[in-house]
Amino acid sequence: MTTTLNETRLDALFGALADPTRRAIVARLAAGEATVLELAAPFDISLPAISRHLKVLERAGLISRGRDAQRRPCELRADTLDEVTRWAEHTREAWNARFDRLEAHLRKLKSDAAGHAPKTTKAMKEKKTHGRSKP
Amino acid sequence: MTTTLNETRLDALFGALADPTRRAIVARLAAGEATVLELAAPFDISLPAISRHLKVLERAGLISRGRDAQRRPCELRADTLDEVTRWAEHTREAWNARFDRLEAHLRKLKSDAAGHAPKTTKAMKEKKTHGRSKP
Repeated sequence: MTTTLNETRLDALFGALADPTRRAIVARLAAGEATVLELAAPFDISLPAISRHLKVLERAGLISRGRDAQRRPCELRADTLDEVTRWAEHTREAWNARFDRLEAHLRKLKSDAAGHAPKTTKAMKEKKTHGRSKP
Repeated sequence: MTTTLNETRLDALFGALADPTRRAIVARLAAGEATVLELAAPFDISLPAISRHLKVLERAGLISRGRDAQRRPCELRADTLDEVTRWAEHTREAWNARFDRLEAHLRKLKSDAAGHAPKTTKAMKEKKTHGRSKP
């Protein structure tokens, strides 16, 4: 099994979100763009550490940095976030489809049984009558 | 900022999904339960390596193992998968709300401008008339 470009993207995406500080940064940016200083404020960690987290988020395509050299505000890229939802929902749909197939199979079994039952009963009755009419 | 139990769960969840083999295992299990041997078949990696991946998925609550000592089939826990969707959608909603607020703000500005404009114009006209009537 080869790793496609899409898989590499998903590795980076899920990896970036596997950290509470980075998820908190993403949640903060969902409310609007912010500078590194603004993003660092609620955390008890150094600015270089925040910068490293931002680089991971940027590589994963979850944030982009503004061109304003002084502020370089960070912005959430919500379309990348949607890839997480799409992957999880796609897998959920496959899981649901399994139950749909099982349900359809059970319905078929039931309808087959209903379809055959009267015939079988009639045939059995005829057999019985026939059997009785014999000496 | 303290790391809550929920955050630790999300760390494990996103961390477990940050690997192509583990995502492939999850996708395979979405189609139905499977044994370790069945799960290992499409991969060019050793059984112990597959077992390690399964342990990561189990710790993240993404799969459960059957009690049948011989087979111990793996099953997907779709409810845990839904936590991924919930987190991403919750963040997406915050992002969308930002635009809704911006839209509401622009609407208010527009309606305020429309509400004041005639008054201002009328007052300006009166002022002008009054100004003209003066010597």
